[in-house]
Amino acid sequence: MQTMKVAIARQFKAPLSIEEAPIPVPGWGEVLVKVVASGVCHTDLHAIDGDWPVKPALPLIPGHEGVGHVVAIGPGVEGLKEGDAVGVPWLHHACRACEYCESGWETLCEKQANTGYSVNGGYAEYVIASAPFVGHLPAQTDFVSMAPILCAGVTVYKGLKETEARAGEWVVISGMGGLGHVAVQYAKAMGLQVIGIDIGAPKLELARSLGADIALDATDPDLVQTVQRETGGGAHGVLVTAVSPAAFGQAISCARRRATVSLVGLPPGDFPAPIFDVVLKRITIRGSIVGTRRDLSEAIAFAAQGKVKAQVASRPLDEVNDVLDDLRAGRIEGRVALTM
Amino acid sequence: MQTMKVAIARQFKAPLSIEEAPIPVPGWGEVLVKVVASGVCHTDLHAIDGDWPVKPALPLIPGHEGVGHVVAIGPGVEGLKEGDAVGVPWLHHACRACEYCESGWETLCEKQANTGYSVNGGYAEYVIASAPFVGHLPAQTDFVSMAPILCAGVTVYKGLKETEARAGEWVVISGMGGLGHVAVQYAKAMGLQVIGIDIGAPKLELARSLGADIALDATDPDLVQTVQRETGGGAHGVLVTAVSPAAFGQAISCARRRATVSLVGLPPGDFPAPIFDVVLKRITIRGSIVGTRRDLSEAIAFAAQGKVKAQVASRPLDEVNDVLDDLRAGRIEGRVALTM
Amino acid sequence: MQTMKVAIARQFKAPLSIEEAPIPVPGWGEVLVKVVASGVCHTDLHAIDGDWPVKPALPLIPGHEGVGHVVAIGPGVEGLKEGDAVGVPWLHHACRACEYCESGWETLCEKQANTGYSVNGGYAEYVIASAPFVGHLPAQTDFVSMAPILCAGVTVYKGLKETEARAGEWVVISGMGGLGHVAVQYAKAMGLQVIGIDIGAPKLELARSLGADIALDATDPDLVQTVQRETGGGAHGVLVTAVSPAAFGQAISCARRRATVSLVGLPPGDFPAPIFDVVLKRITIRGSIVGTRRDLSEAIAFAAQGKVKAQVASRPLDEVNDVLDDLRAGRIEGRVALTM
Amino acid sequence: MQTMKVAIARQFKAPLSIEEAPIPVPGWGEVLVKVVASGVCHTDLHAIDGDWPVKPALPLIPGHEGVGHVVAIGPGVEGLKEGDAVGVPWLHHACRACEYCESGWETLCEKQANTGYSVNGGYAEYVIASAPFVGHLPAQTDFVSMAPILCAGVTVYKGLKETEARAGEWVVISGMGGLGHVAVQYAKAMGLQVIGIDIGAPKLELARSLGADIALDATDPDLVQTVQRETGGGAHGVLVTAVSPAAFGQAISCARRRATVSLVGLPPGDFPAPIFDVVLKRITIRGSIVGTRRDLSEAIAFAAQGKVKAQVASRPLDEVNDVLDDLRAGRIEGRVALTM
Repeated sequence: MQTMKVAIARQFKAPLSIEEAPIPVPGWGEVLVKVVASGVCHTDLHAIDGDWPVKPALPLIPGHEGVGHVVAIGPGVEGLKEGDAVGVPWLHHACRACEYCESGWETLCEKQANTGYSVNGGYAEYVIASAPFVGHLPAQTDFVSMAPILCAGVTVYKGLKETEARAGEWVVISGMGGLGHVAVQYAKAMGLQVIGIDIGAPKLELARSLGADIALDATDPDLVQTVQRETGGGAHGVLVTAVSPAAFGQAISCARRRATVSLVGLPPGDFPAPIFDVVLKRITIRGSIVGTRRDLSEAIAFAAQGKVKAQVASRPLDEVNDVLDDLRAGRIEGRVALTM
Repeated sequence: MQTMKVAIARQFKAPLSIEEAPIPVPGWGEVLVKVVASGVCHTDLHAIDGDWPVKPALPLIPGHEGVGHVVAIGPGVEGLKEGDAVGVPWLHHACRACEYCESGWETLCEKQANTGYSVNGGYAEYVIASAPFVGHLPAQTDFVSMAPILCAGVTVYKGLKETEARAGEWVVISGMGGLGHVAVQYAKAMGLQVIGIDIGAPKLELARSLGADIALDATDPDLVQTVQRETGGGAHGVLVTAVSPAAFGQAISCARRRATVSLVGLPPGDFPAPIFDVVLKRITIRGSIVGTRRDLSEAIAFAAQGKVKAQVASRPLDEVNDVLDDLRAGRIEGRVALTM
Repeated sequence: MQTMKVAIARQFKAPLSIEEAPIPVPGWGEVLVKVVASGVCHTDLHAIDGDWPVKPALPLIPGHEGVGHVVAIGPGVEGLKEGDAVGVPWLHHACRACEYCESGWETLCEKQANTGYSVNGGYAEYVIASAPFVGHLPAQTDFVSMAPILCAGVTVYKGLKETEARAGEWVVISGMGGLGHVAVQYAKAMGLQVIGIDIGAPKLELARSLGADIALDATDPDLVQTVQRETGGGAHGVLVTAVSPAAFGQAISCARRRATVSLVGLPPGDFPAPIFDVVLKRITIRGSIVGTRRDLSEAIAFAAQGKVKAQVASRPLDEVNDVLDDLRAGRIEGRVALTM
Repeated sequence: MQTMKVAIARQFKAPLSIEEAPIPVPGWGEVLVKVVASGVCHTDLHAIDGDWPVKPALPLIPGHEGVGHVVAIGPGVEGLKEGDAVGVPWLHHACRACEYCESGWETLCEKQANTGYSVNGGYAEYVIASAPFVGHLPAQTDFVSMAPILCAGVTVYKGLKETEARAGEWVVISGMGGLGHVAVQYAKAMGLQVIGIDIGAPKLELARSLGADIALDATDPDLVQTVQRETGGGAHGVLVTAVSPAAFGQAISCARRRATVSLVGLPPGDFPAPIFDVVLKRITIRGSIVGTRRDLSEAIAFAAQGKVKAQVASRPLDEVNDVLDDLRAGRIEGRVALTM
């Protein structure tokens, strides 16, 4: 039996263990992917720490931004062949027969499996993927910079679509981190006018360098007035990449009448929605979770055309625990991708 | 100068004064309406008590559900003639030139005037209306039962539209009072399947008698499970007619994945939105405020065809303070319309 | 080997042959359905006669409205068990991985197989179905009246949805035959106001008896004026069940500004669209082909609730050639279902 | 009485007469605009020649792309002051009270007046405008290049919106003339991928220089296959700027399944729509006529930001008949604006 190197969680809130494990065999409808790079996402911390109500079963190989090449094909697979460049996203597979799958909303399928959470993920030399759910990449992909598109990219792209803002209109993007710095680029590629919000000059400079028309400091007491003035009455869409109560309140205040505020983060708890503003301004607040296969395909296309490029540092798999510590401590700019 | 009887607020949180006042003269684009009946709405209490951040200027004649006949025509009026049956809704007039007015969302116009709030309303024998904003009623209207359509009716009709639920799908309507009992009827006329929620057997019986497929007691600890089971996964739309934090939380729990929860009440304060559910289930929360002229026209048409009929008790204008006391005390079933 | 009775086309434009054939064995993801009833559709004639550009391969068992019970389950099937009542629709299966399948438009899948056309259909005692594509029927189904819902029902239901007409608005339904008489009922269940159009008093009486608010004779020279007057400017949606150039021209003339005209028939040739009206009135003309699994599920639900009931005569399979002759000759009212 | 120079049609199919005429006085809700430049549109020929079923009353000053400054304000005007830069579009005014005006579709108002057709237009030193319907221009406008935005710009911008193609998707734009060369720029600003179609190398080079990703010759027998291959199955949207039967057939053939084909020209006659393709591919064919005030405001904003720039030659008003002859003869590249 052949083995592979993996980073595996054996107990919650503990460092991952770097081990050798058997290379898995693809079942019906599955393929085996040799991983080139695997992005590290905040959600991985929630999996490793067992933060959420439904915890993953251990041991678990985390990672839902793995990209690489198909190296083995299970029975019943159509449309994939060895050598194809693919990504293995959060939505490992869904049932394809429920009302959500049937209507292009497989992200809501109640039978879905999630890569690096309910099934093993990409922090490994090889990972199993469900053929109909892989992201299809161009042959000449730069895997390291593509990795974050598999989750961060599609998440913000979908979140922006869900604001229903149209080309020429304004969006506010709250947070210029791993999600937000990609969101600015998608928004510009979609023809939107962009205000990026974060704290501190480096983040604002980053926003501008990526195309934001305006960058504002979240601590600026005049922020809301500035947004209202520059946009002529508020932003048509607001994308909140980090839902803290304060960020949420600011987001609502930046919204134009009839705007949609799209939430893509998953912190625990409630957020307080001001009834008067929401009703009188007919504001729409909408959650959004990753993206469907269609969304992923579109998100990849923007990246493949060079219109969107995540800022990614490459680190070897062996350093995964250092990377996770850096992520916990807020020491990571953009994203990190582990290489095998 | 001719005079008319009015009920007028001269100071906040005090009884209205029944007085004689000059009959107003319609200006450019305005008509004078001789009121037959004038519905009493919860919002009138907020006006009379000065509850909201922007208080009305006193003295004020409240009332935004006045219906009657056009008796005088100002200059520049088109499309109305003496004798026409009309209603004078909350949206007294809007600018017709801002981005909201131009796009069929005049309810969001920042220059709007509101009947019985920023301009005098229908608690009077005569009221001024802006010609392009009146609701057009059939000649043979039953004015007393039509009066609440001007606000309660259009508000819930619009709120139901805003859930985006389609014929054959399920809506939950939370609250079977003045708004909710009308909402059940609109929902059935729209081909929806309806679950009505309120407290106590009489309210549930009312819901069923008006066509609700299922009626549930809000205090039933199994309510959410029942809704989930009967609807096969939650309601496609939820209309919350009384936004208390408890009702709001229950509403979110009754929502199907991808559902829209529509809020049409205006209590002060925040409501707590559970981030996990909103994001993972892609729930949309949307405020909705009265309705546009198109919405009003459609809401009236349903009532004129007999598909919707508000339960309205008729009381003379002289008893307005008793009516308001009853409303404050929760002693009113359905709605009350004052007659002149 | 067990055998079954089938009606099979062995050459185009010839009578079907009644034969014994081997009962097929379900493959991966498939089930075997014992047919109770099988509706006869105009499209079956096109298959049997080889009318369309892409002809079916012979021999072929026609029929795409077969309903019955699951009696055998192939490998890899989920969500179905022996005894389940199901229907086998025109969309036998699709790839579930192309852009159309991924977005809830599997009716546009370029790899789809069609029951009774590219694969064997329901004119037989048994038929193979693809598990994720069957229509799920209630256990207590009246199979004969349900059979036409599998194609006629879902086709007109989808066509009505595609008009985007909302509850309270007007639709014109052109043709009161096998499709149109079902369409009237769906339209009423959707809260629409309905004008039915056909030729001759019996058809108009049928339309009225099924709920049409107005029924008009297509040969009436005042038809368009009547529609315009009764609807206050034209119908918001028009469903053309039989696209002849004359019917199409009349349909456009009945359309309100901004209306959608939905076409669900498949005659050969072109239809002439008047540019001036289409542009100046911003009319939308839209083709619609059967319906997706979601549409089918919804169409079945309306029928299961008794809101829609096709008029169906039951005839034994042995009489299939007589039935087809009657259909060719226009001697069939409503629909016919073959029973086994 | 002060006079102004005008170009006026006194009989159909005859040269315009250059005359002095009284400067008109703005009525209620109107302003007087001193024209700086006035675009010449194909529709002007139809007006001057009396081509359409409803002919204009003569004498008539043509022109619906006049831009300049407000110099006098009538009674009842809000939101405009002397010196404001404005444009006077085709939609001179509408009733603001019908179902179309109320819902943001004033372009469908049955009481609309059209500049340069039913009321005098911009081929003059001064023109009357209806205050709520002017296009608001930036103070520093380049009037000559802005003039065509008032009709050509908004028409194609709206037509592109009506295709419902989203950023990243493909549109085919048929015709690279006065409309099409502007359409390419709007499409790129909206994030679309663009194929421009016309005849001859200069037009294709123009398309590419304006940002078209691909330019194809309409006479190329492989055109449809090329479009299908490059777009991976056809364009998501098709904008037909010149509806000839041949161009229309080609447009349908370039359409992806589920695409929308948007028609913005107004030649007389019918176009032949192929039923099989329209139904089986669920194609939507939609007429589109100029744009609403919102559309105009958005179209102007793209131009004001420099994202769209019409190619316009400036010619003095005195040469108007030469310009019209050139337009008739197809000798004009891009657009011409008359200067006063």
